Amino acid sequence: MLNKAKEQSEASVLPRGEAGSRYAFGTPILVLDLDILERNIGVMAETMKRFGRALRPHAKSHKCSKIAMMQLQAGAIGICCATLDEAQIMQRAGVTSLLITSPVTTDFQIARLIDLTRRAADTMIVVDASENIEAIANAARAAGVSVNILIDIELGFGRTGVAGPAEALMLARLARRLDGVLFCGVQAYGGQLQHTADYEERARVTAEAGLFISSILNHLSQNGFETPIVSGGGTGTHAFDGSSGPFTEIQAGSYPLMDADYERIEYRPGQQWPFDVSLFVQTSVISRNVLGTVTVDAGTKALALNGARPRLTTPSLASSAYEFSGDEHGRIKLAKGVEQPRLGARLELVTSHCDPTVAQYGFYHCVRGDVLVDIWPIDARGRTTE
Amino acid sequence: MLNKAKEQSEASVLPRGEAGSRYAFGTPILVLDLDILERNIGVMAETMKRFGRALRPHAKSHKCSKIAMMQLQAGAIGICCATLDEAQIMQRAGVTSLLITSPVTTDFQIARLIDLTRRAADTMIVVDASENIEAIANAARAAGVSVNILIDIELGFGRTGVAGPAEALMLARLARRLDGVLFCGVQAYGGQLQHTADYEERARVTAEAGLFISSILNHLSQNGFETPIVSGGGTGTHAFDGSSGPFTEIQAGSYPLMDADYERIEYRPGQQWPFDVSLFVQTSVISRNVLGTVTVDAGTKALALNGARPRLTTPSLASSAYEFSGDEHGRIKLAKGVEQPRLGARLELVTSHCDPTVAQYGFYHCVRGDVLVDIWPIDARGRTTE
Repeated sequence: MLNKAKEQSEASVLPRGEAGSRYAFGTPILVLDLDILERNIGVMAETMKRFGRALRPHAKSHKCSKIAMMQLQAGAIGICCATLDEAQIMQRAGVTSLLITSPVTTDFQIARLIDLTRRAADTMIVVDASENIEAIANAARAAGVSVNILIDIELGFGRTGVAGPAEALMLARLARRLDGVLFCGVQAYGGQLQHTADYEERARVTAEAGLFISSILNHLSQNGFETPIVSGGGTGTHAFDGSSGPFTEIQAGSYPLMDADYERIEYRPGQQWPFDVSLFVQTSVISRNVLGTVTVDAGTKALALNGARPRLTTPSLASSAYEFSGDEHGRIKLAKGVEQPRLGARLELVTSHCDPTVAQYGFYHCVRGDVLVDIWPIDARGRTTE
Repeated sequence: MLNKAKEQSEASVLPRGEAGSRYAFGTPILVLDLDILERNIGVMAETMKRFGRALRPHAKSHKCSKIAMMQLQAGAIGICCATLDEAQIMQRAGVTSLLITSPVTTDFQIARLIDLTRRAADTMIVVDASENIEAIANAARAAGVSVNILIDIELGFGRTGVAGPAEALMLARLARRLDGVLFCGVQAYGGQLQHTADYEERARVTAEAGLFISSILNHLSQNGFETPIVSGGGTGTHAFDGSSGPFTEIQAGSYPLMDADYERIEYRPGQQWPFDVSLFVQTSVISRNVLGTVTVDAGTKALALNGARPRLTTPSLASSAYEFSGDEHGRIKLAKGVEQPRLGARLELVTSHCDPTVAQYGFYHCVRGDVLVDIWPIDARGRTTE
């Protein structure tokens, strides 16, 4: 059944590099505008340099080692990963100085963490429980390595992290006592802070979280624990984090890509975000049998549901609305007086929420203007343990 | 950085085949209980045989050529695919008699459809617009092939399909007039019918849809168009579809896997579904710092949001609730008096909605009881066009 020559000839007719080739592929695809991506990466690097903060961007958003390498080349000191899968793929691709931002607790995962540390001694993991520190220390000693740990601090979302200064100090003391782990500082991340839409309110909750983190840092310091690394912050709060937060390094993830959710968040009163949207889902009109709507081939398997409504980029459809219409389909509800797009028309959407949308795709279709210039694997989307 | 020997030794210590190996992997993973899967496949095949209907199961749910082959071996006459990607991967894996259940409208996708047809002449596609039939016929003639088409009928959801008898007849006449396309019958699928929770109401709307489809079939027949294929129906309505529906073949997709959404749908008053849940997301407790809850490593990137709340399978947690807590995390809100599971504890969840959950994973971890017996790629999840 397989015919290698045939497949290769198919591949070679793909019009990469030609004018209009952005619109010459099967849909749905994930389109990445490299001009905008590069600009976003540069702007954040410059911003953090100006603030005198380190940047350790989060790869959970883009899941792509090529983008992580671009971030390192722009001056990032390392990369954050949400999972061991991401970290393992990043490490194999040559990405350095990885921080895993969620605890790992099973024997299987701790063994993988040890292996990552053996291959790159600067790997870091967050912890929030004494039994977890003990388990990691035991495994590390048995393997003859030392694992760098950050104590995770909870910022009111109730997900992971210790509740306050006393718990943080208790864990730091335990870590100091045990061979096999090295206390390097703290992590504090509040996902809910990033997505607070109102500027004044976001400023207020971010400042409040900063004071709380500082109280923990002071308590640790007063008890003889310096915290060389204070990792946290994100795209939504990066200007506060950089200018006045307690952080030594910022974990922003969404800024290279951006999405419709960030579009509804106020950057500063009357000001645009310094990052533009570089990420789009391209879809095709596959049915126009119902007046006032068309159906496109992008549904919940192509666009994450959790976030703002996907936004159509076609100017004439600006006031028309995308609605989910099942796993494989979306419905464009046309604004009054708007003509139905033709069958096969290509539309592009700003995604609801970049992170879980990216996780649905195997590839970025990379463009400059209307030209497809490359196709990048979303390599850290895969699982390395099968 | 890469060390081949090392990686292989890692792989070889995976305890496949040993007692308890179901619980010895990194999480989150998608667990597939093969005993239940095989039983479900057998039950549906037997049911449709009893009803004297053909079965063409939908691969959009499982996205796995191995499962499609099992369905064919159990007596299915072919396989439905939602996308050309799925169809191409299924075809390359040797799966026969493919029906693509959504229109394809761009030049690029029509060229792929022609290529699929050239490799397997019994491939079928649905259409709902005259310009689409013309485009397919033109491309087919140029390639020297003939494409089998089914006219898609809209059942009130407003997604794809013609609105009634006159439009169906118009398209059938057009198809007869054009070389390059062969009219084979109709498709009518109502996703909303499958998920109508109340039994009586589901019976009523399914019967109503059946009458509507029959009116179209009669109109076509009275005008000289026989419809050898009438494809439709699904897991939720399969008993109605099989016993009294207008269909020659049933497109059920979810029945091998099942999910929490089907658990809230009444099969028959007082009766269990003849299919059991074979699909589970396995997750680990990664934090227990907040009393009354624990945090697990499965969020919106591991479990689709659209459907019933994921259900915990651990009996002692039956009245505790899983809540989404971001892209990477879930929160188990423990019922009153329930002890917090320990750090690293493995929990399994019945998924909200099997289709979009499966689409998040690269592999099924296949078990019999607590033994991991195989790992199957979810091969049709990938994209073949890059």
